[in-house]
Amino acid sequence: MSVISEELLSKSAKVDQASIEPFPNSNKIYITGSRDDIRVPMRQIQIDVENQARTDNTVMVYDTSGPYTDPNVDIDIRKGLPDIRSAWILDRDDTEQLSQASSDYARGRMTDKNLEQIRFSSLPMPRRAKSGQNVSQMHYARKGIITAEMEYIAIRENLKWDSIRDINRELCKQHPGESFGAAIPEQITAEFVRDEVAKGRAIIPANINHVELEPMIIGRNFLVKINGNLGNSALSSSIEEEVDKMTWGIRWGSDTIMDLSTGKNIHETREWIIRNSPVPIGTVPIYQALEKVNGKAEDLTWEMFRDTLIEQAEQGVDYFTIHAGVLLPYVPMTAKRVTGIVSRGGSIMAKWCLAHHKENFLYTNFEEICEIMKAYDIAYSLGDGLRPGSIADANDQAQFAELETLGELTKIAWKHDVQTMIEGPGHVPMHMIKENMDKQLRECGEAPFYTLGPLTTDIAPGYDHITSGIGAAMIGWYGTAMLCYVTPKEHLGLPNKADVKEGIITYKIAAHAADLAKGHPGAQIRDNALSQARFEFRWEDQFNLSLDPDRARDYHDQTMPKQAHKVAHFCSMCGPNFCSMKITQDVRDYANSLGLSEQDAIEEGMSQKADQFKQQGSQLYKEIKDN
Amino acid sequence: MSVISEELLSKSAKVDQASIEPFPNSNKIYITGSRDDIRVPMRQIQIDVENQARTDNTVMVYDTSGPYTDPNVDIDIRKGLPDIRSAWILDRDDTEQLSQASSDYARGRMTDKNLEQIRFSSLPMPRRAKSGQNVSQMHYARKGIITAEMEYIAIRENLKWDSIRDINRELCKQHPGESFGAAIPEQITAEFVRDEVAKGRAIIPANINHVELEPMIIGRNFLVKINGNLGNSALSSSIEEEVDKMTWGIRWGSDTIMDLSTGKNIHETREWIIRNSPVPIGTVPIYQALEKVNGKAEDLTWEMFRDTLIEQAEQGVDYFTIHAGVLLPYVPMTAKRVTGIVSRGGSIMAKWCLAHHKENFLYTNFEEICEIMKAYDIAYSLGDGLRPGSIADANDQAQFAELETLGELTKIAWKHDVQTMIEGPGHVPMHMIKENMDKQLRECGEAPFYTLGPLTTDIAPGYDHITSGIGAAMIGWYGTAMLCYVTPKEHLGLPNKADVKEGIITYKIAAHAADLAKGHPGAQIRDNALSQARFEFRWEDQFNLSLDPDRARDYHDQTMPKQAHKVAHFCSMCGPNFCSMKITQDVRDYANSLGLSEQDAIEEGMSQKADQFKQQGSQLYKEIKDN
Repeated sequence: MSVISEELLSKSAKVDQASIEPFPNSNKIYITGSRDDIRVPMRQIQIDVENQARTDNTVMVYDTSGPYTDPNVDIDIRKGLPDIRSAWILDRDDTEQLSQASSDYARGRMTDKNLEQIRFSSLPMPRRAKSGQNVSQMHYARKGIITAEMEYIAIRENLKWDSIRDINRELCKQHPGESFGAAIPEQITAEFVRDEVAKGRAIIPANINHVELEPMIIGRNFLVKINGNLGNSALSSSIEEEVDKMTWGIRWGSDTIMDLSTGKNIHETREWIIRNSPVPIGTVPIYQALEKVNGKAEDLTWEMFRDTLIEQAEQGVDYFTIHAGVLLPYVPMTAKRVTGIVSRGGSIMAKWCLAHHKENFLYTNFEEICEIMKAYDIAYSLGDGLRPGSIADANDQAQFAELETLGELTKIAWKHDVQTMIEGPGHVPMHMIKENMDKQLRECGEAPFYTLGPLTTDIAPGYDHITSGIGAAMIGWYGTAMLCYVTPKEHLGLPNKADVKEGIITYKIAAHAADLAKGHPGAQIRDNALSQARFEFRWEDQFNLSLDPDRARDYHDQTMPKQAHKVAHFCSMCGPNFCSMKITQDVRDYANSLGLSEQDAIEEGMSQKADQFKQQGSQLYKEIKDN
Repeated sequence: MSVISEELLSKSAKVDQASIEPFPNSNKIYITGSRDDIRVPMRQIQIDVENQARTDNTVMVYDTSGPYTDPNVDIDIRKGLPDIRSAWILDRDDTEQLSQASSDYARGRMTDKNLEQIRFSSLPMPRRAKSGQNVSQMHYARKGIITAEMEYIAIRENLKWDSIRDINRELCKQHPGESFGAAIPEQITAEFVRDEVAKGRAIIPANINHVELEPMIIGRNFLVKINGNLGNSALSSSIEEEVDKMTWGIRWGSDTIMDLSTGKNIHETREWIIRNSPVPIGTVPIYQALEKVNGKAEDLTWEMFRDTLIEQAEQGVDYFTIHAGVLLPYVPMTAKRVTGIVSRGGSIMAKWCLAHHKENFLYTNFEEICEIMKAYDIAYSLGDGLRPGSIADANDQAQFAELETLGELTKIAWKHDVQTMIEGPGHVPMHMIKENMDKQLRECGEAPFYTLGPLTTDIAPGYDHITSGIGAAMIGWYGTAMLCYVTPKEHLGLPNKADVKEGIITYKIAAHAADLAKGHPGAQIRDNALSQARFEFRWEDQFNLSLDPDRARDYHDQTMPKQAHKVAHFCSMCGPNFCSMKITQDVRDYANSLGLSEQDAIEEGMSQKADQFKQQGSQLYKEIKDN
């Protein structure tokens, strides 16, 4: 059990230094929108700084790390992050502040003297929609309203706020991606954001009680996002550790964080995380509900589950995984599977259904859940409780029956203007991945897909970030909007910080590879800048532009530790005597010596080739024929 | 510079213990063919050993580790591995033993007193085809001869020598793969192997001077193979280290090894590696040729290159990378690239072409190279010297012009019955990968493709095993026959043993994911066995069936170190109080309680579903419509 003592807190108040260190050669900048309090953070990486002649010497990248990497912000996790959204929410004048928490359980925790030491000290009073109001972003969008959140996102999703973009525009356009029906515009506008949210093709998870949030969007016509999981369990870990994992996860690029705690003090752990999180927080409320009945699934009731939803809603959780598609008739379909039901939430509901021989109470009370969701603007993440847990079980009857039900539930959620995304598998071999995506888009009316991997083979425990990173990249290309990370410890144990980082970076790779393949405008800018740096032996730029500057530098230094080597015009593969990259200067000189522009040189090359083959090539062919 | 002193040798004579430790709960077994000296090694993993009732308690896996993991074989790297193929080669009666090496350079090395300390002591005299004979496997195949090598491979490629296969047959067939034109038969026969080799769709790299070789095949109708690179460089490493890396690489699954040494004592390093390697060894002869002219590409001559080919041929190199497609007229096509020419061999030839303003001597002397290849049975690996080195340069004019030339050269090689595969990129975004495969098959008459990744993004130095593992899995599915591994140190430094292992395992994942997606018969057996073990909480079996048992066990023990936990019926994610996998027993009981077989239960589930929706579902729909 974890106790945050004063001593521990004053230590934590500064957070782990590794999480707040600004990235090398990077500036945190803010782009201001139509109102002064729309300030969108970006990381600007300085490159080729010694080259005075160069004007395109910055690369802008999407930044999930929040105020932690801003040296001008004082971080104190006892107070939480600065308030970003309250003014926007108040301006809409459709919510009210409550005088106390609506959840019985929450009130009990707040007045329990034994919890004083671990309670977040400056708790805000929760807000809720005024009676009869719907405060979801989807509701505004459908009424034609562009919210501050939408404008914030439009600025954030554009990667074009940069001089280097123009230089790279031509290169980026050489290879338009195959986007499988997605239609990413050249420029993301606030109106485009509104329209995608109105259509249900994208969601903005943004609980009105999470005012520290830097708004972001999940949809297949935007940058592919990733989620990182954390959470204590019956076996280990403390509140500090979880907050620390959160700051660590967003530093490396996690776009949302799911708190999957199942151990002690779930309520307080979540409070600390939300108050300190600039990214949306998702939960699986049934996990906490199960803890409240000491792990006995059959003792779950709708009433206590409902109280749990409201408890978490008023803390500021941005999206809920709800396993409302695990229907009683589907449960026997899993009997013949190699790995049965592997989703924790799915098996909880299956157990409840079997114990009572009744239909899933999340399904039967779905409309009432919608009423709660729209009073706080919480998004559904409709859980795939029957997802396959092995290659053998992929795309089976149980999985697809549930997916069809999730499609029906999506329509009900949309009737209430409740934002909705759909969770997906799991374990799927490569040739069966696209079928998942196509069916999800069809059944769920293009609601965003949010998949766990999928793992493309079962034979590599210890490397499941990789087995799943392959599937994640592919399904991201096909149209999945958010990829739930998998760490190397998946199936084996609880991830530590190194595992979290390894999982996050792997999923940033998958998401970025998907952005490239979808042809997201500007996604290739960073690749081009890094490759140019590589080609010009600008080692520092190569490190700084990479997803993990620390590792890139460290690996380089293992072979060539001397500072002088960082400006060396060779690398460790070829050594100083011969370098393939150096040859290109000869090539360019040759092209010039022909007295031609480079384009002409290429055409000249082609024509020389033709001449050549007329002599040599046709001779070779002749011999083949003669033989 | 490396000197293998007696002391070092007697230490190395036992090889690093980590490389020869038998795998846990595994037996090395041999399957005998039509003659007693065809003994094909396999690793048989024992599972569920305490379950007396079970008869299918072994899983057989393809084994690249050679005699090193056979406790009955005495390993002494000073003597090299046992001779496997001499009897087969002698029986064919088309070769002769030479009284000395044919290469001037080799004879010089062999008589140099200064090299005595590092020379491999029990050097065999080389063999060569008798005058006018062609000893390539392709030549035999086209004459309708099934060689011992072909029969060996037919046994090796079948994963069906196992009781568990029958159990899994049904499961494996549920999901036939999409094989993009490949046609893998249910059973691999020696005649099928012969036919694929005759057609040029597969190669068996097997130099007659590499008698220690355990024959293997590279072709898209067989298991996808992987290659691991090693080699000293101007900056570091010794002969012992390279031999050690080789044994380490094949332990983890490398199907072939390329020796890319560019430093000192290349000749002797290669000798030690070949004499101790059970897998084919590939080289890039131009690397050694360049060392002989002190790194000055313009000083290269056809005569000294030819001597280098013969030097290496008589040592037993199984395949040569030859950059004969880098033609002078193509060189200017790279002038506008972001990263120019990144292939080391490609840039050497480009530099030579420019310096002399002459056509590539590998191209102009291609037929003479064929004469050498067929006298020893060395396979071509036609190098892609103009492959893209960045996302921006993928699939460009230079790359594809060279590929077309490689197609022409393939036809010339086949005219000589010389086995040929084609090297491929490189850096390619996901949506442009398939075009590479399709064009390669078309241009090169279905000769096997052998690709380096490809990397699907440039932004993650330090993680390029992952950026490339994604592309490798995909192109393997599309039809690539062998995947050249990339380590985490790619672009940054020289890999150490940990990096080599990380790269190999990543590529085993990619290759296996591709085998699953192609529907290779039996590939899924191991996935199913591992998933069943996972579901039944047989932790030891889960570790033992994985690609890396050591890491799987280690990661598990970090969270749950106690021995008791290895038989615990829960894992660290859910803890002991609730476990999703345990629920399935309830599900099966429920299915049984319905008085139905499992299949009936599924059908019953479907009909209950229909009834349910007649009541609840249609009610929900009604509300949507009413709204």
